[in-house]
Amino acid sequence: MTPKQGTRVRMSREARRTQLIELGLEMLRTRPLEEISIEVVAEAAGVSRALLFHYFDSKQDFHVAVAGELGRQLLERTEPDPAADPIEALRGSMAAYLDYVCDHPEAYQALVRGAASTDPRMREVADGTRAVMTRRILDRAPALGVPTGPVTELTVAGWLAFVEETTLRWLRESTLDRADFERVITVSLPALAMVVVDPLASN
Amino acid sequence: MTPKQGTRVRMSREARRTQLIELGLEMLRTRPLEEISIEVVAEAAGVSRALLFHYFDSKQDFHVAVAGELGRQLLERTEPDPAADPIEALRGSMAAYLDYVCDHPEAYQALVRGAASTDPRMREVADGTRAVMTRRILDRAPALGVPTGPVTELTVAGWLAFVEETTLRWLRESTLDRADFERVITVSLPALAMVVVDPLASN
Repeated sequence: MTPKQGTRVRMSREARRTQLIELGLEMLRTRPLEEISIEVVAEAAGVSRALLFHYFDSKQDFHVAVAGELGRQLLERTEPDPAADPIEALRGSMAAYLDYVCDHPEAYQALVRGAASTDPRMREVADGTRAVMTRRILDRAPALGVPTGPVTELTVAGWLAFVEETTLRWLRESTLDRADFERVITVSLPALAMVVVDPLASN
Repeated sequence: MTPKQGTRVRMSREARRTQLIELGLEMLRTRPLEEISIEVVAEAAGVSRALLFHYFDSKQDFHVAVAGELGRQLLERTEPDPAADPIEALRGSMAAYLDYVCDHPEAYQALVRGAASTDPRMREVADGTRAVMTRRILDRAPALGVPTGPVTELTVAGWLAFVEETTLRWLRESTLDRADFERVITVSLPALAMVVVDPLASN
């Protein structure tokens, strides 16, 4: 589908836009988002700078589109298996989460940091991705006997921050092997749910 | 110590600088850091804009100084009681943490968000504050039978992210009363330590 570098191919507006976003994602494998300029992407796509601005209003606009695609892919890969029991589904999702993170470390960092971006659209992408992940867990809480309510909601949101912070550190410091780290981010959720969310309290 | 608004008092350079930082902290009680301009502070301190620039190179420089003082105060208030056992000390520190947060909600948000700032000095303040809090906990881990090592270090850093994320949400949404929320951020640490940090593993 992707034309060779420098080859001009007549494409629909939507297909061209998607191609440019995928190129941005591909570039994120080797460099941080800030370093992906319109010029560099235009050159790699074999299109003019002016054409790129036809699809994206600004470099920032392009970055938001790339981050949005990232969030979409991460959610797609970590979709819990509906046939598995909730703990098995969690284990599968966290394994897929780390697969994606290891495959796109720069992109993952850009997405997580986007939550604190000054650009509200970037925050929306990061917060929207988190909201879907949180919702998936809350939907499965009753099956585990965990009552839903404000304590559970805070705990799940806090756990996701735990996962993101430890993942960023793990990428940076690599002090644990993959299997041990996967265990940390997986068992932490039931650990918190068991102790923090007291089923006897009104929650 | 603080002169009345509009009163000019001859002060040492250090005292004047401290006075201006404290004024910034005071202003943070009612508005976000971004809205605290050099002009507003100069007016409230009864000094000229030029004099303020004599102490701080830029608005950003002033914000970094204010955030630094904030981090210092937060660490001072949450210093664990050396006479208490580790769990009692944790409980006391988290109560003091919430006291400070409730007293300075805007300032707390500025400090936590500083960790993702584009200004490296701002990140240094936020990360430095976190590093001290993490160190205090790691120093007490052996007394609780928790082995130190990479799993414990990641877990404590992740727990602090859990505390920050849930605190930001709690300030925004107030879905829990203070006592219930204090319980969430306090019991979460031993919950994670018991399950995530396996004392039988090499850790």
